[in-house]
Amino acid sequence: MTATPGKPTMVDVARHAGVSLKTVSRVVNQEPHVSAALRQRVRASISALGFRRNEAASRLARGATMLTLGLIMENISNEFYSRLAKAVEAAAAEHEALVVFGSYEERPERERMLVESMYARGVDSLIIVPSPADHSWLAGHPGLEAVFVDRLPPGLDGADVVALDDVRGGLIATEHLLARGHRRIALISDDDGLSSVHDRATGYRTALGAALDESLVVRGVFDPWRVSREVERLLGLPSPPTAFFAANNRAAIGILQALRERPERPAYVGFDDFALADVFDPGVTVVRYDVDRLARGAVDLLLDRSGAGRRVKIPVELVARGSGEIPPP
Amino acid sequence: MTATPGKPTMVDVARHAGVSLKTVSRVVNQEPHVSAALRQRVRASISALGFRRNEAASRLARGATMLTLGLIMENISNEFYSRLAKAVEAAAAEHEALVVFGSYEERPERERMLVESMYARGVDSLIIVPSPADHSWLAGHPGLEAVFVDRLPPGLDGADVVALDDVRGGLIATEHLLARGHRRIALISDDDGLSSVHDRATGYRTALGAALDESLVVRGVFDPWRVSREVERLLGLPSPPTAFFAANNRAAIGILQALRERPERPAYVGFDDFALADVFDPGVTVVRYDVDRLARGAVDLLLDRSGAGRRVKIPVELVARGSGEIPPP
Repeated sequence: MTATPGKPTMVDVARHAGVSLKTVSRVVNQEPHVSAALRQRVRASISALGFRRNEAASRLARGATMLTLGLIMENISNEFYSRLAKAVEAAAAEHEALVVFGSYEERPERERMLVESMYARGVDSLIIVPSPADHSWLAGHPGLEAVFVDRLPPGLDGADVVALDDVRGGLIATEHLLARGHRRIALISDDDGLSSVHDRATGYRTALGAALDESLVVRGVFDPWRVSREVERLLGLPSPPTAFFAANNRAAIGILQALRERPERPAYVGFDDFALADVFDPGVTVVRYDVDRLARGAVDLLLDRSGAGRRVKIPVELVARGSGEIPPP
Repeated sequence: MTATPGKPTMVDVARHAGVSLKTVSRVVNQEPHVSAALRQRVRASISALGFRRNEAASRLARGATMLTLGLIMENISNEFYSRLAKAVEAAAAEHEALVVFGSYEERPERERMLVESMYARGVDSLIIVPSPADHSWLAGHPGLEAVFVDRLPPGLDGADVVALDDVRGGLIATEHLLARGHRRIALISDDDGLSSVHDRATGYRTALGAALDESLVVRGVFDPWRVSREVERLLGLPSPPTAFFAANNRAAIGILQALRERPERPAYVGFDDFALADVFDPGVTVVRYDVDRLARGAVDLLLDRSGAGRRVKIPVELVARGSGEIPPP
């Protein structure tokens, strides 16, 4: 093994961590039989030295495996998750790591089985978009390292979490509509047992203040079809909303579907960008964020185990494309 | 272990295969140290008896892992793949199996690393949407079982493949446009080194016959932005096309984006349905198929190892929503 000047090698990592080269190799190749404490020490040195494995091809020839991270999320077919998955793959690739995914489809027991299955196979560095169920069982897995994305894991204190600035997202979406003269602004949201949903609603409530009308707040709708029915119901009220804040992409899509059949042209702002948002006419105004930052934040926390209970907040911004700038009738 | 009448148990499987209960348990729990031949024998008995493990929770309590299939595909953020992934998860769940995914992002060497990484971790039952690169290296993995989806793996003879009826898809899309009076019909397609793309183009060429104009055939465009530029170029020709056949969902989306800025209203038919296809006005006419059948076909072939070189063809149909029914100007 020859050292390129300025490029730390596994030998440098071994020296820095005060362990054998074999131990570093075991950690780098995710082989078993390394204690959690030793693994953490090696990883801290890897991170301190900025060691980057760049010998994927030669290791492949030797039959070694790539460093593999696990990503566990709710529903792979939802665009939020598929964008996140792609971004996590790209961030992991910068560390020459691969990613395996699993999605649990709103069934918390499948979330747990995915964790157990990956862990049993040596994939013990996990990025998890947690379900709203209790996660205290995760603590009983020595060596398992997890970073949570988008929301807090209920029942697990001291977790590392990378989330969006959801309160601010709800706030700026609602303020944007208020600034166009809307006063009756409905909220369409899903399970507010999720910290992200709860925080977006908090931003919405804060912006509205005394103008808040609880009869315009819809909670617990998950699929676009049910959102459409709720939008139609609200538009049929004696005093209907003139604008909507859709707290996720499925809610925005449900609004689009409902409006295809309706004469009304309410304003609406979505949370989460989606591929076709600017192909519609008018384009869909959304609260947007850099999904690469979300992914990179999670991968960085996962590979740098120098802390615990860390919270990273990714900023959000409003992108005006037309649907959020429609004035009240 | 008590047998429910009509419900085969692991004991029945052991008796049928003529092996020990321990061997059946090892195969079912994907533990190592079972020869490929023995594993195939047990799997054949599992499949012959219709054995279904329904003890996920108890195995979880014992610390055992779920049967885990691997799904390797090109790009998780593309809707074709995320729909496929969700459908494979659902089909696997019927066998109480979990799925881990990996996507290789148009980099065949990452496809190989994903296979190696999963294989090294005991995930040796793989569903692969193969890249256009040579796959002969796959043969050197004892015990690895793979089923290919959507296209043939170059360089690997005797592979099991579940694909769409792509020739027919290209044919009915083009005939649909011909029946509306179009004669100048452009094809927008990507890498025709992929058997699926090649076959869709064959259907298109067959339908057009002598009316085929090679100057209206676009190959090798992958992203919607480049599709948009090609659509604009074609519409600017002295004798422009009056209709388009988009050979995949990205091509259809690129056409939608181009037409947002253009005065022309050509007809177009896409291949692959997508979530928002019926929310646009006009709705997007597509060649559609049942992605659940595609996924279930692959999972069934993977779990039933009673053959080799099997080919399953999933039927396609045309769904008229408006964009494919626009007459020539």
